[in-house]
Order: sequence, then C-alpha cells, then structure tokens
Amino acid sequence: MAQSALPNDLVDKMHAYWRAANYLSVGQIYLLDNPLLKQPLKREHVKPRLLGHWGTTPGLNFIYVHLNRLIKDQNQSVAYIAGPGHGGPGLVANTWLEGTYSEVYPNIGTDAEGIQRLFKQFSFPGGIPSHVAPETPGSMHEGGELGYAVSHAYGAAFDNPDLLIACVVGDGEAETGPLATSWHSNKFLHPVNDGTVLPILHLNGYKIANPTVLSRISHDELQKLFEGYGYKPYFVEVGEDVHDYADMHQRMAATLDTIYAEIKDIRSKAKAEQDAGKPVTRPRWPMIILRSPKGWTGPVEIDGKKVEGYWRSHQVPFSDMTPEHVKNLEDWLKSYKPEELFTETGALRPDLAELAPEHDLRMGANKHVHGLTSRDLRMPDFRKYEVKFDRPGNAVAEATREMGKFLRDVMKENLDSKNFRLFGPDENASNRWQDVYQVSGKQWQAEYRDEDTNNDFLAQNGRVMEILSEHTCQGWLEGYLLTGRHGFFSCYEAFIHVIDSMFNQHAKWLKTTRHIPWRRPIPSLNYLLTSHVWRQDHNGFSHQDPGFIDHVVNKKAEVIRVYLPPDANTLLSVTDHCLRSRHYVNVVVAGKQPALQYLTMQQAIKHCTKGVGIWDWASNDQGGEPDVVLACAGDVPTMEALAATDLLRQHFPDLKIRFVNVVDLMTLQPKVEHPHGLDDHEFDSVFTTDKPVVFAFHGYPWLIHRLTYRRNGHDNLHVRGYIENGTTSTPFDMVVMNQVDRYSLAMDVIDRVPHLAVKGAHIRQKFEDKLVEHKHYINEVGDDMPEVKDWKWPY
Amino acid sequence: MAQSALPNDLVDKMHAYWRAANYLSVGQIYLLDNPLLKQPLKREHVKPRLLGHWGTTPGLNFIYVHLNRLIKDQNQSVAYIAGPGHGGPGLVANTWLEGTYSEVYPNIGTDAEGIQRLFKQFSFPGGIPSHVAPETPGSMHEGGELGYAVSHAYGAAFDNPDLLIACVVGDGEAETGPLATSWHSNKFLHPVNDGTVLPILHLNGYKIANPTVLSRISHDELQKLFEGYGYKPYFVEVGEDVHDYADMHQRMAATLDTIYAEIKDIRSKAKAEQDAGKPVTRPRWPMIILRSPKGWTGPVEIDGKKVEGYWRSHQVPFSDMTPEHVKNLEDWLKSYKPEELFTETGALRPDLAELAPEHDLRMGANKHVHGLTSRDLRMPDFRKYEVKFDRPGNAVAEATREMGKFLRDVMKENLDSKNFRLFGPDENASNRWQDVYQVSGKQWQAEYRDEDTNNDFLAQNGRVMEILSEHTCQGWLEGYLLTGRHGFFSCYEAFIHVIDSMFNQHAKWLKTTRHIPWRRPIPSLNYLLTSHVWRQDHNGFSHQDPGFIDHVVNKKAEVIRVYLPPDANTLLSVTDHCLRSRHYVNVVVAGKQPALQYLTMQQAIKHCTKGVGIWDWASNDQGGEPDVVLACAGDVPTMEALAATDLLRQHFPDLKIRFVNVVDLMTLQPKVEHPHGLDDHEFDSVFTTDKPVVFAFHGYPWLIHRLTYRRNGHDNLHVRGYIENGTTSTPFDMVVMNQVDRYSLAMDVIDRVPHLAVKGAHIRQKFEDKLVEHKHYINEVGDDMPEVKDWKWPY
Repeated sequence: MAQSALPNDLVDKMHAYWRAANYLSVGQIYLLDNPLLKQPLKREHVKPRLLGHWGTTPGLNFIYVHLNRLIKDQNQSVAYIAGPGHGGPGLVANTWLEGTYSEVYPNIGTDAEGIQRLFKQFSFPGGIPSHVAPETPGSMHEGGELGYAVSHAYGAAFDNPDLLIACVVGDGEAETGPLATSWHSNKFLHPVNDGTVLPILHLNGYKIANPTVLSRISHDELQKLFEGYGYKPYFVEVGEDVHDYADMHQRMAATLDTIYAEIKDIRSKAKAEQDAGKPVTRPRWPMIILRSPKGWTGPVEIDGKKVEGYWRSHQVPFSDMTPEHVKNLEDWLKSYKPEELFTETGALRPDLAELAPEHDLRMGANKHVHGLTSRDLRMPDFRKYEVKFDRPGNAVAEATREMGKFLRDVMKENLDSKNFRLFGPDENASNRWQDVYQVSGKQWQAEYRDEDTNNDFLAQNGRVMEILSEHTCQGWLEGYLLTGRHGFFSCYEAFIHVIDSMFNQHAKWLKTTRHIPWRRPIPSLNYLLTSHVWRQDHNGFSHQDPGFIDHVVNKKAEVIRVYLPPDANTLLSVTDHCLRSRHYVNVVVAGKQPALQYLTMQQAIKHCTKGVGIWDWASNDQGGEPDVVLACAGDVPTMEALAATDLLRQHFPDLKIRFVNVVDLMTLQPKVEHPHGLDDHEFDSVFTTDKPVVFAFHGYPWLIHRLTYRRNGHDNLHVRGYIENGTTSTPFDMVVMNQVDRYSLAMDVIDRVPHLAVKGAHIRQKFEDKLVEHKHYINEVGDDMPEVKDWKWPY
Repeated sequence: MAQSALPNDLVDKMHAYWRAANYLSVGQIYLLDNPLLKQPLKREHVKPRLLGHWGTTPGLNFIYVHLNRLIKDQNQSVAYIAGPGHGGPGLVANTWLEGTYSEVYPNIGTDAEGIQRLFKQFSFPGGIPSHVAPETPGSMHEGGELGYAVSHAYGAAFDNPDLLIACVVGDGEAETGPLATSWHSNKFLHPVNDGTVLPILHLNGYKIANPTVLSRISHDELQKLFEGYGYKPYFVEVGEDVHDYADMHQRMAATLDTIYAEIKDIRSKAKAEQDAGKPVTRPRWPMIILRSPKGWTGPVEIDGKKVEGYWRSHQVPFSDMTPEHVKNLEDWLKSYKPEELFTETGALRPDLAELAPEHDLRMGANKHVHGLTSRDLRMPDFRKYEVKFDRPGNAVAEATREMGKFLRDVMKENLDSKNFRLFGPDENASNRWQDVYQVSGKQWQAEYRDEDTNNDFLAQNGRVMEILSEHTCQGWLEGYLLTGRHGFFSCYEAFIHVIDSMFNQHAKWLKTTRHIPWRRPIPSLNYLLTSHVWRQDHNGFSHQDPGFIDHVVNKKAEVIRVYLPPDANTLLSVTDHCLRSRHYVNVVVAGKQPALQYLTMQQAIKHCTKGVGIWDWASNDQGGEPDVVLACAGDVPTMEALAATDLLRQHFPDLKIRFVNVVDLMTLQPKVEHPHGLDDHEFDSVFTTDKPVVFAFHGYPWLIHRLTYRRNGHDNLHVRGYIENGTTSTPFDMVVMNQVDRYSLAMDVIDRVPHLAVKGAHIRQKFEDKLVEHKHYINEVGDDMPEVKDWKWPY
C-alpha cells in the first residue's frame, strides 16, 4: 500500500496543518482570550464554564487534512459528514483554516482577533453549538442524535455522480439500529448515476463511559462484518507507538490513494457495463476502518490518570482550572507549536494554507450541502388528474392511487433533472403509488433472479426507493432533501412513529436554518401517511396509531403543516402544494381504500386554499343560524359525519345542520400560534360561538382540543376520534368501537341540541338499536351491514 | 452433518405433523365451515372476507415441529419467538395441535367443532388478530411492528440459564435498524448465567412486494455478515427440488442436533472456565439460516402466475372465490391429506400427537412467557435514603444520584433472585446511577483490555446493561419484563423518542393482556428521563425535547403513569412506587444536576400519594382565598416558580399566593379519563375556579391544557413551558428563552392579578430590566448571574 509514499516535507506540512486544526479545537473548548498564547496562560484566559467534546476531534481533523490532499490532487468534489457530531470544534477549526468560516461569518476574521472570537463563541451563550450543527459551514448533518450519518450520506450521493461523500462514522454511533442497517444502502446505489460514499469507521474505542462494541471484537470479525455488509474494508490503525504520526500520515495517504484509484476503477467499469447495455454489477465499495486513540495528541495523563486513548478524553479532559491544570493546558496547547502554524497577525501560515482546496472544492463550501444547487420541480398541472363524478358523495375512488398518477407524471417531467425520488418501506404498491412504475422502477442493485419479472419493477436505475427500514428511508430522503432535491415518503400511519426522533431532528434543523442566509431553503419533507388507523381493521391493534400528528405539532409552527384531505381531488391539490413548497414538514394523511368523493377539483382547490370550510351541499342551514355544527377532519370521519347528517336529516327534517370540513389542521390554531390559523372572526363565523359542535376527527380527539382551547366556542366543542380502541375487525366496527360512527355522532347531536331532548328520544333509541344490530351482524357474518357498506350521500 | 439421520418413520410422522399445522393454517385463513373437508368444498364454506398471511407460515410451522422433536429429545425448555408476526395462523395451529390452545380457550376444543371455531375466529370480528398477538399462547412478542425479535429474545434469556429462546427472524424484519444492531446482543449474554438464544434467520425471499436484501446477497457475504456479528451460521437450504421434504426434514433435524450439542458444549466449557475462576470466553453461538420458499407447500401457480416461492404468497394467495378458485383451495387443503392427520372426531391422531412435548415443555405453555414465573422484588425501605436538610429550598442534592443509591440497594437485595437489571444507552453514569456499580457492574462479554481498570466497572456478571442503542436497551428490557422480571431504563429525555414506536407497541400489549386471565400481570416498564430539556443547555437544541410524555398520554389511561418529582425525596418515593407496580408504563422525569430540595421524606410520601398539593410553606394564602395560584410541575419549573414567589412576596407583601406542585401529571385529567384524576371538587379546591393560575411546566405547555380543558377554572389557566426555543446556552437562559423564568412568571402574575395592574407597573419594569441584565451578563461572562445561580428559598 506504500507505493505512493508522500514526500517528507509534505507530510511535515500536513502534520502542521493537523496541529493547527487541533490547536484551534482545543482553543475553542478552553480559551476565552490569549488565543495565540502570546502571553503566559492564566486562569482568566480560560472560559469560566468549560463545555465541548475533545475525544473524537483529533481523528476528525486527521481525516479532514487527508481529504484536503485528495481533493487537491484529484480535483474531486467531496462533502464531509461527521457522524461523531460531538466533534464540532474540529469542523469549525477546519472550515476556519480553509477560509470558508470567515467568508460566511465575516466577523470571525482570519487574524488573532478572529481566532479569539472563534474560541469565545464556541459553546458560549449566543454563540455556536458544541456539535456539528446547521451553523457549521459544509455541514448537512446535525451531530446531535446519532444513527443517521450513513443514510444521510447515501441520500446526498443519489443523483450526484460527481460527488464523493466522506462519511465518518463513530464507533458509538455504529451501535445504533439505524446506523447498523444503513450499511446495506450500498445495494441501492448506482455506481454510474449516483455519487460515491466512502464510509470511514472511526474506531475511537470509547463512548461516554464505555468501550465500544466494534472496537472490542476481533480484527477478523470486524473485517467479516463489513465484507458481509458488502464493503471492502481497508484498515488504517495506529501502531505500538501511537505518536508516530509520520507513519500514520503515510498510511492514511497511501490508503486514500489506493481507494480513490479503486473507486475510479469501479466507476469506469460500471460505466463500461452500462454503455454495453449490460447489467451493472454491484461493486464492493471500499471503506476505511481508522483505529486511533480517543483524544489523540491530547494529554496522555492528567493527575496520574490515563486520558489519551481512554473514555476520560470524551468531553473536556480536565475542567477544574487549578494552577496545575492551567499549566497542563498551556503545555498541551504549546505541544502543537502555534508559533510554527500562524503568522504574526494570526493567519494560517501561507505555506500551510495552500494545502487546502480552493473555492467550491473546500469541504466547508460544498454547494450541494448548502442547498445552493437546488432547483424547483417541473410540475404537471394537477388539475388534469381530477376525479370526475356526477354528485358529491356518490362516486368511489382510491385517493392515493389518483395521487400516484400525479406523482408518476411529476416523476416523468423531472426524469432529466434527476431530482425527484419516492421513498417507502416496502409499501409503495400497498399504498397505491404503483402507477409510478410506468415511469421509473424500484432501485435495486442486489442480485436479480430468473423469477424476477417485469411485474417486480426492480430496476438498476429506479427512482423508487424501498427498503424495510423506515429509518433508512427517512435518512435517505433527508440526505436527498438536504442537498436540494425533492421527494415524498409514503408510510403506514402507525409505523411512522419509528422515525419520530428523526423527524424531531430534521424539524429542528429546518427551524435553525431558516435564519442562516448562506443556506438556501431546501425542499419540504413530505409524508403521505396512509393505511391509516381506520382502515387497519384487518391488520389489527398493533397497526392502529394516528399519533404522529400529535408529535408533529409540538415542533415550531413555522415549519409544520398537517393536511387531512377528505378525498382524491383535495389530496391532489394538497400534493401539488407540498411539492412546490420549501422548508416545511408537510404531513398528509389520506386513505388508500375505495372511498366516496366529494369535491370537484375547483371546489377542492378552494377548500384546500382556505384549509377549512362549510360544505353547503351537505348543510341545510343556509340563510340562517344552524342548530348544530357537524365538523370533521379525515376521510373516514368525513364519511361518517356525512352519514350522520343523512340520518339526522331523515329523522329531523327541520334540524338545521352546518357541515364543516377541515383539511388544513393548523387553521384551527389561533393565528398567533400558527401562520395558517384562522383569525377569531373567521373561526367564529364557521364554527359559531354558541352552537354545539360535534367534531369527528381522524386522530386522538384531544388534539382538536389542544388546538382550539382558546377559541370562543370551545366549551361547546365535542370531539370524537380514536381513543385507542381497536383490534382485528371490520372498517365500520373500528369507528363504532371509538364512537366516531354515524349512529354515535347522530346521538351526540341529539344529546346536544336542546329541542331534541324529548322529541329525539325514540330516534336515539333507534340508533342505539342499529349499533346492536351491527354487533350481531359482524359476529355472525364477519362483515359490515350492507346499509353501511353501500351507503352513499343520497341528496 | 448427517450423522444423526432420523428414522424414516419419524420423518414421515414429523412431516404429517407439519402438514397438519399447514392445513390448520390455511383453514384459518379461508374456512368458515366444513373444517375437515368431509363435504365437497363450496363457496359458502369460505369466509366472506379473506384476511391473513400465508407466506411465512409454513416455514414457521416447519421450525415448530422440529423444535418439538428437540424439546422432547432433550427435555429442554424452549420459548418460540416468531419475528415474522404475520405468521399468526401457524402459531395458533401449533398451539392447538399440542393442546395448549384448548386449555386456555376451552371453547376451542380438540374436535371438529373446535377446529371450525378455530378457523372462524381468525381475523374475524370479535375473534383473534392475524398476527402472533397477546392472545396467542406461548407468545411474548407481538408480531405487528417489526424489528424487536432478537432484542426481545436476549431480554428473555438474561438470567434464565435453563431456557433456550428459538428466535425466528424474517428476512423482511432483518432489514430494520433495531434488528440489524440487535445481533450484537451476543456480546452481552453470559454463557453460564443466562439462557441461550438460537436465532433462526428465515430467508423467505420476499417482503410484501419486494425481494429481501439478505436473500439477494451472495452466500459468502451472508456467511461473513453473521460471522462478523459473532455467530456461527449453519445453513439449511432447500435444494433444486423444493418439494423434497424428506431431505429438508433430515437436514433441519441434523442441524438442530449438531447445534444443540454445540450449545451444550459451549455452556459446559464456559462453566468450567467460570468454576476455574477464569474469564469466560465469548462463544461464537450457533445460528440457523433457513432458506425456504415463501408460501412453501402452497399452490405453485394460480391463474398461471407464480405463487409459491414468490411475493404473491405473502398474504392470501387468491381471494376472489370463483368456482375455479374454490377448487384450487380444496385441492390445496387436500394436498395435506387431512384424513391422515385427524381422527373421525377431529382430534389430532394420537400417533402424531405424541410428537409434541408435554405440559410446560410445550412451547405454547412456556411459563416464562406468560409471566407465571414472576416474583416481586425485595424492596429496601426507601425512606432511609432520605435527603435531610434544615429548611426547604435551602439545600442542594442531585436527585438521580440519590435514586442511584436506592437502586444500588434494590440491586443488592435481589442479587440472589437475579430478577433486576438496569438499562441505558451509555448513560448510566452520566445520569448519576453509578453507585449501583458498588453492587454490580456493566455486563460485558466482548474483549477486555489491559487499560480496563476497576473504574470501568465492566463485568462478566454485570446487571447494568449498556449499549449505545435505545432500541436494544428497550428491546432487552421488554423481553426481561415480559418474562416477569424487573428493570428501569434511564435515558436522555430528548432521545427517548427513538423508541416512541416500541413504547406504543408495549403499551398496546399491556392494554390487551390486562384482559387475558392466563397471563400474569408483568412488572411495569419504568423510565427515568433525565438530562432533560432544561439542563441540556450545554448540549444544545438537538438535545432538547420534552415531548415523550405527550406521546405517552395518548395511550390507554389504565396503563400510563407520568411523574415529575420536584426533588430527591419525591423521586425516591416515586421510584419505590414504580418498582412495586405491575402492568403500567411509568415515566419519571427528574434532573441529575445539583438542585434545591424541598420536601422531607414524610412530606414527599404524602405529596406523591396525593399526586398534587398545596405547598403551605411556600404559600401565604393561609386561612383565606388566594389572589393567584402559582402552579408547577418538574424540578426546574418548580425552582423558578418558587423564585417568582419570592420576588412577588418581596415586592407585594400583601399579595396572597397559593403555591401548588404537581408530581403525578395524571391527577390533572378528569377522573373519568384517568383513574388518578382528581375529582372536580378536589381539583377546584386546589386550583380554585375563579383565580388566575400561572402554571410553570416542564414540557410543552399545551399538554397541561389538553389535560385540563374540561376543568372549571381552565379559562383562568396560563401555562408556560418549553416552546421549542433552545440552543447551546446556560441553564437560566434556557428558561428565559421559553419564558418559564422567575421574572417572566412574576410578570405573568402581575398581568393577571387585577389590583396589580397599576401598582405593579414599575415592579414589572424592574423584572424586565433584570432580563436585560441577564442577557448582557451571559453575553459577556458566558454564565448566569450569581443572584440567579445562588438563589435559595429565603423563608
């Protein structure tokens, strides 16, 4: 591997560059002043409150300086993903050294004052986080919650053939589930049309307080594990003398050269196969396993206790700044010989500065990861996918299948741009998006078999991404969006909770980056949640959970949108809106089963634009005050609310019912809480301030209360929704168990309209009897009553 | 491997037993009547609505019959975990065949009528779910959401040395993140003191609509992957003729015999090492990779389309019951030759029945998985861990560290019983439970190094379980609890969202099993959420999320408990309660940082018993009506509310303040919603019905509104909490950003008490000025004002 040994003077320079990065990293963690140690170090030069993580940082810096050399040598665009996000100081240091930091933050200049500010702001109130964060140039990967480095890397690589993603994975993160399965992403990457992911597993040895699993299995097991994952691992490991840095520089450089040649070879062979019209063989992509001591180059011992190469160096190696420790710190900082690294004014010495790549090739200035290469989608006119029918509530269609046709054509329009993909955990067809296969298949780089037919839609160039891992789907999509492209994630509603925490982190990223001017707003994260709670009657209780939207609305209103389109045309309108939007999380909940259709496209557009509205054709309070408002959100509750309206109108022709449907859930919140919130006047004009409102809701009923508790009419609001009653049953039995069915809703109205108290009693009894009949029916026949199954809006 | 070839007649019998299981599985999916095909099959014998999953079932049945043989031969207690939960019919069929089903469900007898009922109830309203579910005897693992089979298996194996867990993992599930990392659990299993996990990776080839990743990589990669994970994989694969069943029976039996001998050998060698006082070597445990066609033994083709060995057999292979399909179904069922399997009355033929193990050795009757072996913990008296102090709000302690001392002694008291473990993702010490190491270390079966010292607390017999995977911790703990043992999970509050979905499934399991009399209530799932939102000032925005409790309260009230103890003594009282309870999920949120202490142990017990209470020593409304109620929940909000009270009492000595603390969040809900809910009279007597209530809350403020919107005084309630404002900052700045700080709370009071509107204006301005001073202070010094940091309750 040593064929390409670097000249000694280059090694010296690279080592100096690394020392500079390490110096600046330690400085960020410790120093408030005296940035270049021009004076003897005193306690008052040290921050009063010491925060940060040293342990992983020197390794991240080591990799950075070596990637810089590769980039310059090869003119290769590289993005750096720092899985060990605790290494914030390292990435900040390196982007300052290469100049990008001062470009995006002009007040942090490339001089001693700039360094002092760089040091002070780190983990300082009003400053920057201790992790690799949105504020860090060159980052598209927040280093807070662990597990997503590799899936983000692959997501960024898709459709970016010229890009190489160097993805450093900490051996702590490697223990997480999402990370452990994301290695398999290599079965979904096309070696010509996609970019390259170079994973670098950093065996640092320790987590906060424990050794890591992967650092404590045999070399043989480790090698097999990654060969089993489909990689060709190259080991770069410190020898007996962990401080023989020259040797490690040579080894790392030689390995990188070997690997880069191999990558070029892989890509050109794949290109040749493709050009010859042959299937492209899945390559065994190279990866690096870098074993280096935690807290490398830091103090070997403090107070007689082992620090370097040990968990004690995880955070701040010593923090009670006794005079002795101040001296320890000064010695440590001076061990990097800052006087050899920086000019008199505090700039990086020019002979070292030239080691960094220039312009966009600097990893801190990579255009992809700042969203600067993002283009809008070409959008077909969604109105032409209109589901047409004669009368509202009388025709049947599968909403998500209609959406699938629209997505098919979005896919088609953007095939050339290569900036649109769909993601799902083996549910794309189950969720009725299969028309998309007419345009693009399912990306599959693993083995093909004779039994695979055209019906399987497996494709080496597919743009539908399916793996049975919500984490990987979400991670890929995030990586794809964070680099400016577009996508939609379809998922069973109950199991989207698997990525609750990933959603949290992405929403936080969006919140923070809204205020970072050198990043471009990225396309929205779009979810279709289908196979939802009301139609998981067949799969049972474990598949019934509408709570993701409860989780979502906790995040900042400025980035959150929730839509519950009641039918296909509203779903189409919402879909169009989501795909055109940027910097939101759009959650769309819609059914895939045959269901009644209510609004023409023109009505749907109007309804979705407003977000909430009175459906005149279903109301009979025209020109007067209603006796009751029947409100609903979600497709199944809408149908039940309409059926309840039908029952009530049959039995109480004089009852004035106002029928309200909510498609944009955020309209319910006060305007001060959410930009989509109706102002109070509008809200009152729809819901009234004094009439009973019976609300049939898709999700947990208290979410509606949580959104409306400040509204004038809130005390009159009675919400029905999923109250965690479920099992394997029938669709109608699901709503009955949770009292969102037509009979229960009609009874709710009778109970709340004063003048029905007496006169409605015998009708109420009829509705109760109907529920008994229903129970009897499903117990015997095992299915729903025909009058319920076949019900349509009769007016 | 063929050394132990089975006699042909035994193979024939086992094959017949397998056919019986397959017959009963198909029958469950399809038949409403004519269970033994005594009459020609007609449409009306077939269910009107066909639901279920055939694809994985024959493989699960194949494994079951082979495990039965092993159990009988070896007298080995085995529990069966069916990762492919869609195989519900298979497990139901097998437990019926061995007799356990009819024992726990006497109305499903071992005769034709019983079979007919068995068939009808499957996936039928009022019947049983299509998955392996709580209702399935022998199950401890719900087959709904995928990913947790292996971690459940290890959890069940811990401290059950005589138990072997046969854990079938579907190749779909194997793609999930939680599953992918859970293979590493073998580094945490003790080969003498724990039981054995035998993973059986079932390469069925297909998911719903896609091939599986692991079935489409090379044999070499697959083998290396599992060798890399630390296993010794044995392949059992169908040959060219997938219907040469005798051959597969021989191979499976021989492999199981080989493996079982190897397991015995591993365990006895480890025992010898242990007895000799040597470190116990980590074994390379055997596992099986079983490759068999999806929908094996089912129709090869239907309507000319491939079904067996293809994704089309995933669910119901054909469901439009045309006359031709009725004939297909009859042929399929008859291919199992039911007349050779069942007696005239519909019992399994006696010569086949004797293949099943007897009594507790039947896998459907395994005592562990029904919680029947569960014992209560021996509990030390928590009162002796009391933190003592002179005056409330004047002394400082770290709450979770005190809890750790108590847990240490709980551990000690139960060391002999071996039924208590602690779980955490590398955070046990960070969360201040380290005193527990005095009694038991961290379980670690991977490599030890010279650098490992006593300070690392790694132990081959440790009872503290740490891996950097919340999924694995949760899965282990669930497996441990589901088999009747006890535990506590400590986690950073923000990252507990990683297991949101696992919590969902466990809560659903608890809800369902409450109503299953042959299961014993299992110990509660206990969470300590610490390193919480208000003290993640140093780690920043990504680490700040108090939303898990929002997620939790959506589940059934009967299984959910949420506690926010304000100090160490209340935390101790709550901890004691949690460890004694069964069948709940207890979520405890408490800080680990030095914090003020308020209640003596006696007061703490009283306060926790009531769940909410007026703190007289902090109130000055004694003997009269208050002007305002200052309420709080959570340790940091409690301190800020007290400091606000202090400020208000300094400036408005006449203002009558009632100070209320909530430790049991569920007391706020109406009693009809939650058993802990205060009745309205009690609630009103604490919170008043007409006075302003300023509520400082630990989490998102709307949660308090969601819990109290039906309460009389709700319109007067003003809640402050985390509103998703955060970054790297200081503790006090965190509360300021979210307006939960003492100055903001005091201003909230001034704004809401009518008689302070004028007279309070200049004081209000003072408080505003304080916030300006605070900003200035942290920007310059980078820390909080001393008057805030050093504040204590002065009365």
